[in-house]
Amino acid sequence: MTQTRDEFEARLRRIGDERYHDKHPFHHLLHGGRCTPDQVRAWVINRYYYQSRIPMKDAAFMSRVEDPKLRRAWRSRIEDHDGTAENEGGIARWLKLAEAVGLDPDYVASEAGILPATRFAVDAYVRFVRDKTLLEAVASSLTELFAPKIHAERIEGLLANYDFANDVSMSYFRKRLSEAPKDVAFGLAWVLDHADTAEKQDAAANALIFKTNVLWAQLDALYSAYVEPARIPPGAWVPGTGLALAKAS
Amino acid sequence: MTQTRDEFEARLRRIGDERYHDKHPFHHLLHGGRCTPDQVRAWVINRYYYQSRIPMKDAAFMSRVEDPKLRRAWRSRIEDHDGTAENEGGIARWLKLAEAVGLDPDYVASEAGILPATRFAVDAYVRFVRDKTLLEAVASSLTELFAPKIHAERIEGLLANYDFANDVSMSYFRKRLSEAPKDVAFGLAWVLDHADTAEKQDAAANALIFKTNVLWAQLDALYSAYVEPARIPPGAWVPGTGLALAKAS
Repeated sequence: MTQTRDEFEARLRRIGDERYHDKHPFHHLLHGGRCTPDQVRAWVINRYYYQSRIPMKDAAFMSRVEDPKLRRAWRSRIEDHDGTAENEGGIARWLKLAEAVGLDPDYVASEAGILPATRFAVDAYVRFVRDKTLLEAVASSLTELFAPKIHAERIEGLLANYDFANDVSMSYFRKRLSEAPKDVAFGLAWVLDHADTAEKQDAAANALIFKTNVLWAQLDALYSAYVEPARIPPGAWVPGTGLALAKAS
Repeated sequence: MTQTRDEFEARLRRIGDERYHDKHPFHHLLHGGRCTPDQVRAWVINRYYYQSRIPMKDAAFMSRVEDPKLRRAWRSRIEDHDGTAENEGGIARWLKLAEAVGLDPDYVASEAGILPATRFAVDAYVRFVRDKTLLEAVASSLTELFAPKIHAERIEGLLANYDFANDVSMSYFRKRLSEAPKDVAFGLAWVLDHADTAEKQDAAANALIFKTNVLWAQLDALYSAYVEPARIPPGAWVPGTGLALAKAS
């Protein structure tokens, strides 16, 4: 049976309550200051891959949208990540964080050492958005509903616990605090408007579950590889490598 | 510089020595008899997803091959997995193993409870074969070079250590012992014939590395979810569920 708009929105929010990666033990280690510097670096290296694919995901979405108004509303996501004349963009800000934690930003941007499981999960997300219905693609972006809380926890936890955390290195998260709510207000309204049958509501809810799995699997892979007893897969980043010269010398 | 045929074959075999999943701690637990029944079940449930996608991967490959001779040589892989009038096929044999370890084969075939990381890795493999060059697609199948050893270890280790292991439940592995060498002899010769520049040799070697990552990531996900301290991701199979009725009652 088709849910009312309010019921359906509550269903989407429950998915976040139950499955968003702020429940993952790696998040607790990180914002609680219990990650070692190398575990923070592993997170920065792998999360870079996710950041780097978001604008490709958004371009894949826009390539399938016939409505110029929808494309125009979506376009700011690419600008937010890739930058404009006035705004360096989220990817550049992420590389500042990489530098702040002692990594060579060129190493991070080279994508060497990314965990294969990170690639598989992130690539699955890009392909989901490329292949599924527009409704499922927009719905999969709604993890942003839950992002302000995790960004605020990260800023607070990192600032309290790590020397590297300062206004420059935290700029990615601060900027997302203002960008994500604008994006998600649009995305949520669009999904609520367009999921007008039970079948479409199920598809949209499953798309959001899929996306929570994409995020959860990334933290699982990090935890498995770099938290004791660490099992780093062949070819993935090994602590002590990829450091900025000043730090490595 | 282009390697000689022998040098290039040795390079491919070294990839297996260094990266094949017979080096993974989950494999050692399993064939050493140190997996609990629930860990064996988790392996059977997740590995089913891999089995189920292999014929789709092979069909994706054949859909891009213009040469009828190559398609004809490849076709037996689909028959081996999906079955023929005389041969039940690998997927049906895998479900017999599922039954032998106490699982409801319908539950296993439903694909409910598969780890998201298993899906991401396996789907990445199907898409790799669909999207990359034919050479890379064939090269990615060459993990079969290393499979007879792991199948033999599994048969021996499972028979020695687990009550469920018998001729029926082990039939999948026994059959693969004769099927895989035939397939890989063809695939290896094809890759050695077609990788006739340094660039193509690199691409083929990277394709084989990619495939070892696909296999390794599946065991990493299993280990992370089901070996103590177990961290089962939201929605994945929970021990005690999905059992065959006789066993569950």
